[in-house]
Parts: sequence; structure tokens; C-alpha cells
Amino acid sequence: MTSAHRNYGRSLDLRRGCVDMTHGSGGRAMAQLIEEMFVRHLGNSYLRQGNDGAVLPNSAGRLVVSTDAHVVSPMFFPGGDIGSLAVNGTINDVAVMGATPLYLSAGFILEEGLAFADLARVVESMAAASEAAAVPVVTGDTKVVQRGKGDGIYITTTGVGVVADEQEYSGDRAQAGDRIIVSGSIGEHGMAIMAQREGLRFAAPIVSDTAALHGLIAAMRASGAAIRTLRDPTRGGVATTLNEIAQQSGVGMMLQESVLPVQPPVAAACEFLGLDPLYVANEGKLLAIVAPADADALVSAMRAHPLGRGAAIIGSVHRDSHHFVQMTTVLGGRRIVDWLTGEPLPRIC
Amino acid sequence: MTSAHRNYGRSLDLRRGCVDMTHGSGGRAMAQLIEEMFVRHLGNSYLRQGNDGAVLPNSAGRLVVSTDAHVVSPMFFPGGDIGSLAVNGTINDVAVMGATPLYLSAGFILEEGLAFADLARVVESMAAASEAAAVPVVTGDTKVVQRGKGDGIYITTTGVGVVADEQEYSGDRAQAGDRIIVSGSIGEHGMAIMAQREGLRFAAPIVSDTAALHGLIAAMRASGAAIRTLRDPTRGGVATTLNEIAQQSGVGMMLQESVLPVQPPVAAACEFLGLDPLYVANEGKLLAIVAPADADALVSAMRAHPLGRGAAIIGSVHRDSHHFVQMTTVLGGRRIVDWLTGEPLPRIC
Repeated sequence: MTSAHRNYGRSLDLRRGCVDMTHGSGGRAMAQLIEEMFVRHLGNSYLRQGNDGAVLPNSAGRLVVSTDAHVVSPMFFPGGDIGSLAVNGTINDVAVMGATPLYLSAGFILEEGLAFADLARVVESMAAASEAAAVPVVTGDTKVVQRGKGDGIYITTTGVGVVADEQEYSGDRAQAGDRIIVSGSIGEHGMAIMAQREGLRFAAPIVSDTAALHGLIAAMRASGAAIRTLRDPTRGGVATTLNEIAQQSGVGMMLQESVLPVQPPVAAACEFLGLDPLYVANEGKLLAIVAPADADALVSAMRAHPLGRGAAIIGSVHRDSHHFVQMTTVLGGRRIVDWLTGEPLPRIC
Repeated sequence: MTSAHRNYGRSLDLRRGCVDMTHGSGGRAMAQLIEEMFVRHLGNSYLRQGNDGAVLPNSAGRLVVSTDAHVVSPMFFPGGDIGSLAVNGTINDVAVMGATPLYLSAGFILEEGLAFADLARVVESMAAASEAAAVPVVTGDTKVVQRGKGDGIYITTTGVGVVADEQEYSGDRAQAGDRIIVSGSIGEHGMAIMAQREGLRFAAPIVSDTAALHGLIAAMRASGAAIRTLRDPTRGGVATTLNEIAQQSGVGMMLQESVLPVQPPVAAACEFLGLDPLYVANEGKLLAIVAPADADALVSAMRAHPLGRGAAIIGSVHRDSHHFVQMTTVLGGRRIVDWLTGEPLPRIC
């Protein structure tokens, strides 16, 4: 993302202007867009270097790199937008690896005709999320595709962090006896998107839970609990994430439906649309697998953090050569909580 | 990019199958696509970790991070495809910062209906480029968008590298008297794409120059030449890149048209289409600004490397408060080589 400080004549018309193909061509129009849109809002000393990449201080420890393409539709939704989601989502992917997130990069694919006003709103939202999380966007790239070859805006963010200690949270470390903890109520992001798409209205609107979880994770680490695995249950929801962990670790899991935290509007919207909140995406929640002796202390530590107030033990890990995730239902029966197989929620993140 | 090793029943039908919305939903179909397509071809120990990101050995030195969204159309072209381009382009962005490229991430945005055969061809090409460059793809993400919301495949790659010494190649270090060197003939990537789009045929077909330049750059560094700036002249071509450097460094530049290396088929195609090769994208060439005393030695070092055989001094840096890039033409006149202002070559990379 090169920014050459020069005079472009007229400034971008942020009220009525829109993206056209020249903004992706590598010339003056692109340089102006980068300077007046991206550098203006996201500006930091690294981004202002104006080279093909950023040169950054390193930190001791192993590197963690994670990337996510964001294609959420609609781009604005209650509680957030594609910009804050792209920042928080990638910070979370780095943080659940046990790393301190240091830097973000952002690659934008803009559709010809995107209003500058919408783009500015997204970039401002990214800037606010980046500042709140104290993780700067240090480099980026912008491409423009023709009308009908995109959908307003896609943002791929990559996060770089470091793991300073020997701690590692991997999906293959869950053991029989471990407890399964969720940091709060589930299904809010996905149902906020779905309710908006379907035009559903509730007395209490459903708001996306998009949030950066590295502060909560730092508090969890500081508790000293023997955490095996951390994961943010995004696409596919809690059910899919737990199936992945069960598979990686070669274990089974048993959930208790009665203790699953679901807000009433989310439960109502799920029932109306025939969805199961276990399969609905979250963007500000995490799952932790923890040694049984440390589970209560970890929940207490989580509840002391604003993003973990609703933390709860929702199940446990056991031996199972089939690696099934099952649930004891409120009616006392048991059911398999399988992987998501269909396509209930396209373009949720 | 989570890969849980499980049995999906039938394998992907690589001959007749295609991407559908379930491949982006976070469930079983996505896990299968990742395992049988991405992990199969790109597989390495990091990617096989199967977590939300990769934990990687760090190296001493400052970090360099660079990202590029790739939207080239058509996705296959003479000399390469969007996969090799996405690997080489980002390696080059890291390498021109003076860094040793270590790792790549890849975010895929797939359009519903993309043939698995095409996707496999792109991923195999990425794997070959990654292996040739010895820079592994360590983590990734896949999203699927509906028909008409994408164009087959977009790939955003992010590169991470380290600068082990104090050397820094920044766009703001060019000084009056410095020489401008290009590593070989210009305009091949852009004209390979344009010739294919326009259905032009030449006796000698124009082939993209896509290549990873970190080996050439290592040879240049080993020469000990006082290199100020390295840049790969992609979108906007040599003209735009030199204008950026002139602006960042606050200098003027003078090129010699008579020594600009342009292959005859590229010159012919440019003339036919009314394009100037100075504005046409390169994907395997670099520009170096170097202290005058070291210019000849640097050219010699470059010519000893397979990717620098056509290296040439094409101009010099001088004081100019207007920061103009100018050129002495073959007719002996002078003209301004301005920034690219129009839109000659959309979606070239």
C-alpha cells in the first residue's frame, strides 16, 4: 500500500463518489484512494512507510500467522460491519493459538460502483476496532473488480503474533475428563445477520457479538489454568468447532443442553428459522477445553472480564473411538451433535 | 484452515465436480475441500497443524509483512496462472523490502460453480511455485460466494519475512546521482494477459515473466553494492513505480528510452493496442536504485543470475523540486513520464 504524499487536485468526493476501475490500476487514482481513505483512517507509522510491505519490530517467541477472507453479506449489520469483523476475527484466530497479536494486514477487493461513503464507514470501523484492540493495520493492498464480479467489498486480513512462552493451545490436546467451557451466550453473530437478511424484528434486536478476545484470553492465561485448547466457534458454530477438536484429539464429548447459554431473542429467531444455535456463528465467543481441576477457577477468571461474564461449563470430554460429540437434552435424552453438513448460513463472515 | 482427518465417504469429483455454497459453510464439505484440495497439494507440517493459524519458528531480525489481493483475469495465462502469481507476487513484495521471505498465508474467495479441475490446477501451481521458492503456505482460509458475486477465484496472499541485518531498502532513499537499474525486459506480464484477452497472436507468443525474485535479490545483496531502493514494478509498470520513488525520495529521474529493454513481441503488441510498455505490469522484474560507483558491479552481479540476465542501467536520479520522471527519447527529445492516470489494464494481477 504505497502512499506518496502529493496533490491530487480535488479530494475524493466522500458523499457522492464511488469506486471505479481506475482505483485499482496502480496509478494516481489508486494512490489518492489509499491516501485519503486508508492511510487517513488507519494511519500509523508502519502504514505510512509507503512501501510494498511494512518493516516491523520483532518479538521473542514463536510466530503465529492466521488469515481470514471476509465476505459477510450484508456488509453492515447490528453490532458491526465487515470492517470490525475483519479486524476482530483475525485477532481472535491469532489469540486462540496462545499468541499476543501484534500486527494486521488487509487486502481489499472492491467492486466497481461501491460508494465511497460505505467504504469510508467500513474503514473507519476497522480503524476503531484496530485501535480498541491495540493491533495496528500495518500494510495492505487494494484491487478493484468490475460490477457483478464482487459484492461491494471483501476484506482478507492476516494477523501476526508471537507466543512468548512454551504454552500451546492446539486442537489435538483435549483429554478424557477435561471440561468444555464457553465464554458466553451463543449464536448472536449469525442470527444478527440472518434476522437482518430475513427482515425479522424482535422486541430486543439481536446484535452481533463481534469482539476481539485477546484481552479475555490474557486473563485466562494469567489464571494459570491448564488450558488444552482454545477456539473461536465462528462458521459452523459450537457444534462444528467441537467436532473438529474431538477429531483432532481423538476423543468424544458430551454437552448438557440445559446449561447452554442462549439469549431468548436468539432462541426465538432460531426456532422461527428452523436453525439450531449450536450451528450458528459467533464472532466474540470462545471455547476452552481445560483440565477438570482448573475448570471452576477458569470460569471465575473469565467472568471477571467484560467479554467472559456469561462463561459456563457446558460439557466434558471422554473416551470415544468414534469421536462423537453428543448432548444430553433438556428432556433427558441423548443426541448426536454432528458436523454441519448442509448450507444454512452462507456468507456469515 | 482446519483439517480434521476423517472419512468423508466419497472423494471430491475432481473431473466433474464444482464448488458450491456448502464448501464455505464451515462444515463437513468445507473440511473435505480443505483436506483433499489444499492440504493435499500445499501440505507441509505447519498447514497440517489444522488449527486456526500456524505456530512457526521465528528468526532474528525485524519482521516484514506484505499482502496482495490477486484478481487477475483470465485466471490462466501463458507463463502462469493466478496461483503462481499469488505466490511469486507476495514473495517479491517481501523480498524487495530486503527481507528473507519465510512464510505465506492464502485466503481464497471462490465463486459458486468453479470447477474443481480449475481449482486443483491453480492450487497445484501455487504448490509448485511455493516449493520452487522454498516458501511454504502455512495457513489459509476459504470462503465461497454466490454466482455473480465473484469471478472464479480470488487469492489474497500475505508474506512474512525477516530482515536480519541493518540494511533497509525504502522508497525514500534515492539520491541525486544514483543510477536506476531494471533487471530485464519490461511489460511481459501485462501484455501476456492483454494479448490473451484480445485474442492477439504473434509468431513468438508473449509469456508472463512471473517469478520469485528473492534469489536474485540475495545475489544483489551479496555483491555489497550500496542499494538504496528495490521495487517490483507491477501494476502501473516501471513509470508508476519510479514516480512513487521520486515522490517518496523527493528527487527527479531521467530515463534513456534507447536502453529500455523491451522484447519485440511486447513492443509490437503495445503499439497495436496503443499502450506504452513503461506502464505495463511486470511480475518477475525489479527496479533498483543504487549508488553510482556501484552500478556497474551490481549489473554484473545481476547478469550472473538467471532472473537478471537482461539487467541494464536505464537512467539516473537528479535533483528536481517537482519530482518529475522524464525520459530522453530515441529521437533526442525529452518527455515527462507521468503517473498512470487512466485505466488501460484492469485486473492484471
